[in-house]
Amino acid sequence: MSNSCCCPGTEPARPTPEEIAGILRRALAVPGLIDAGDSAVIFHDLSFMVSRCQAIQGVFPTNALHTLAVKANPLAGVLRRAVASGMGLEAASLAELHLALASGAPPARIAFDSPVKTSEELAFALGQGVHINADSLEELARIADLPQLRESASVIGLRINPQVGFGAIAQTSVAAGYSKFGVPLHEKRREIIAAFTRYPWLRGLHVHIGSQGCPLSLLVKGIKTVFTFAEEINEQMAASESSAWTDKQLEVFDIGGGLPVCYRDDQPPVTVARYANSLYETIPELFTDNWRIMSEFGRFVQANAGWVVSRIEYVKKGATSTIAVHVGADLFLRRCYRPDDWHHDLFITDASGHIKTGRQQPYVVAGPLCFAGDMLARRVNLPTAQAGDFLIVRDAGAYTLSMWSRYNSRQIPKVIACDGDSFTLLRRRESLKEVLAFWG
Amino acid sequence: MSNSCCCPGTEPARPTPEEIAGILRRALAVPGLIDAGDSAVIFHDLSFMVSRCQAIQGVFPTNALHTLAVKANPLAGVLRRAVASGMGLEAASLAELHLALASGAPPARIAFDSPVKTSEELAFALGQGVHINADSLEELARIADLPQLRESASVIGLRINPQVGFGAIAQTSVAAGYSKFGVPLHEKRREIIAAFTRYPWLRGLHVHIGSQGCPLSLLVKGIKTVFTFAEEINEQMAASESSAWTDKQLEVFDIGGGLPVCYRDDQPPVTVARYANSLYETIPELFTDNWRIMSEFGRFVQANAGWVVSRIEYVKKGATSTIAVHVGADLFLRRCYRPDDWHHDLFITDASGHIKTGRQQPYVVAGPLCFAGDMLARRVNLPTAQAGDFLIVRDAGAYTLSMWSRYNSRQIPKVIACDGDSFTLLRRRESLKEVLAFWG
Repeated sequence: MSNSCCCPGTEPARPTPEEIAGILRRALAVPGLIDAGDSAVIFHDLSFMVSRCQAIQGVFPTNALHTLAVKANPLAGVLRRAVASGMGLEAASLAELHLALASGAPPARIAFDSPVKTSEELAFALGQGVHINADSLEELARIADLPQLRESASVIGLRINPQVGFGAIAQTSVAAGYSKFGVPLHEKRREIIAAFTRYPWLRGLHVHIGSQGCPLSLLVKGIKTVFTFAEEINEQMAASESSAWTDKQLEVFDIGGGLPVCYRDDQPPVTVARYANSLYETIPELFTDNWRIMSEFGRFVQANAGWVVSRIEYVKKGATSTIAVHVGADLFLRRCYRPDDWHHDLFITDASGHIKTGRQQPYVVAGPLCFAGDMLARRVNLPTAQAGDFLIVRDAGAYTLSMWSRYNSRQIPKVIACDGDSFTLLRRRESLKEVLAFWG
Repeated sequence: MSNSCCCPGTEPARPTPEEIAGILRRALAVPGLIDAGDSAVIFHDLSFMVSRCQAIQGVFPTNALHTLAVKANPLAGVLRRAVASGMGLEAASLAELHLALASGAPPARIAFDSPVKTSEELAFALGQGVHINADSLEELARIADLPQLRESASVIGLRINPQVGFGAIAQTSVAAGYSKFGVPLHEKRREIIAAFTRYPWLRGLHVHIGSQGCPLSLLVKGIKTVFTFAEEINEQMAASESSAWTDKQLEVFDIGGGLPVCYRDDQPPVTVARYANSLYETIPELFTDNWRIMSEFGRFVQANAGWVVSRIEYVKKGATSTIAVHVGADLFLRRCYRPDDWHHDLFITDASGHIKTGRQQPYVVAGPLCFAGDMLARRVNLPTAQAGDFLIVRDAGAYTLSMWSRYNSRQIPKVIACDGDSFTLLRRRESLKEVLAFWG
């Protein structure tokens, strides 16, 4: 067993307010980096991100293919750096596939997942030779009909819904009895096995349990369920008379992503080492040379790597005082639309980046949008705030800017990468001209 | 009373499936208008939109200023047409203010509302002479300090929260005990009156009860509450010794928007004529020459004017069959994130645009995004669907494209205006190159 698990890996904890404030003060001291027009700025710590990638790489077998989910944070500079640190990329749309290719990832290290792949998109993906996870039996039938399949270097897998149940957040759980994704295992067992018999090019299985809110035990249970099924497929195929069958047909096992991420100080972090150990103990065979593990982590790598700094524009005093800031449901879509499911820790600094302390009072933290639900916190205790202070929103590196909502046409903030001691610009602030051009 | 209410107005009903399918068939027959790459297309009926604007104009006094909310649908071609039909525009951000100015609206017919107006934004607005609704007492203090105030032609109002309670949708209700918007009337009564005494340039009041889900009676109650307060302000000012006071100080009354829109066949439509009549019966004084009414309708004008056509890419058959289409939580953010609050009627046509009929079966209608909640319908009865058919989403002209979420980086669909018998392009389909450039 050459690929044995698991070294503990180096897994950095989420940045502390003191670390974030220190970086902010250094950034404020760089001439021209943050100017008066920057009512809000997004930071992304690339060295933190790389250390999380290394933590993943360290705890799985060396032949594993780790594809980072583009959708978590599609900034070109972020993707390029991840690829340079040995990550593949996972693309869930045609544009994400192009982003992945433009980031320098070799096609064989790119996974293309989407539930609505058109024939043109599939033909393009087959031509590039990227890994394709089909979402349905109907998609397999479409792939089978494409002339590009014959010469393609693509490895093709099938997404299975193990039907093991919901996590804590129904809207990001995809392995209940019904899911819009994948082929339901219990319902379609025979048809799935028939597909492997019919399509000798079908060489992988793909499973994804959910994103955030799924306990490790549920992740492992879902993967174990599909892995047991994979072994059943292999056995049935070995026993079948299908001439197309080869001993190594089913060899790629894509475990998806979904590792819960720490968003609160009082929440014990889940480490990828613990996850890999748990998988190894439950499914040791998956860690042998008989299999190639694929993963599709996103949130785990990106969420803690980013944070947002907004100037406090107004403090509206009243029975309930309101802190009005420059980011809301545009950048924190899930927090604002599903406040019971999503949370971000907040803290404030003064205008020079020093953390405010002292007696706390309850505030509403409201965003800039013309929408009553546009609130980052309905009630949060913070030290006395005043206009000109900064509000910092932690753990904002995943599923925030990537979901940017155009509502109220506000300009997208500047994104600054910090990388050790240096700062670079990942995205300049959107100009008014660009916003106007957007609307035709 | 020269401005008496109310003529019934011409208020077109929402387009029927037959009308929509007819327009689709005509559009499909126009060479090059819709091509194979257009997996989804957005339609907006400009003549319908104009007739809704005329309905508003017809039932309020002729001196009223009707500002259409840019945020409901900011497409340049939509705004220009609205302005050409006599509407002003309401802007809730700096970019929306620039969009309004670029649309040809005279500054005096533009309202600038935002809860986080910066000093630079206020200075710009004062320089342009647009109407400004301040959101807070803190903002009034900031305006008072700006040198641009002295020479400005701007009319300035103050947004009041009448604290009359929630509508059916908490997230779009803004007149409960606490709201992130406006100055709470009961809590700040004395301070508000003091502000009118202190600031002779403060000439208007602004109230907005909520967007969708608020019954007419709640809208009228909120406006009546603030109007009674306006009369109290006028009385107190008249009795005061403030030399700054003039008899005509408080003359603009902005009733906001919030007229409920019909999203279901079985839902009786609320007409603007009924709304105006109800206001007139409850607050006749508001309809006299002593006042200038402002309005900020958006949804009422735009929602029914638009619809979306998506190709059905897959029908995934199973115990629960899934129709997979090319728009989801990117375009229908509220429907997907708050499915209990928001609804769109759906129907399907064949590939040539003929409405499908016959025996119905239950479907899930799922969007293209990598997100379990990305569903336009969790269960809807539709005739048997197949790949290549079209799914039509009705009443999609407001708070849909304007809230576009970048998630999964999918290309924004083409927007086609229909206007009587002709078609024009309001926005071309976003190119892959543009999406890639977006991420730096």
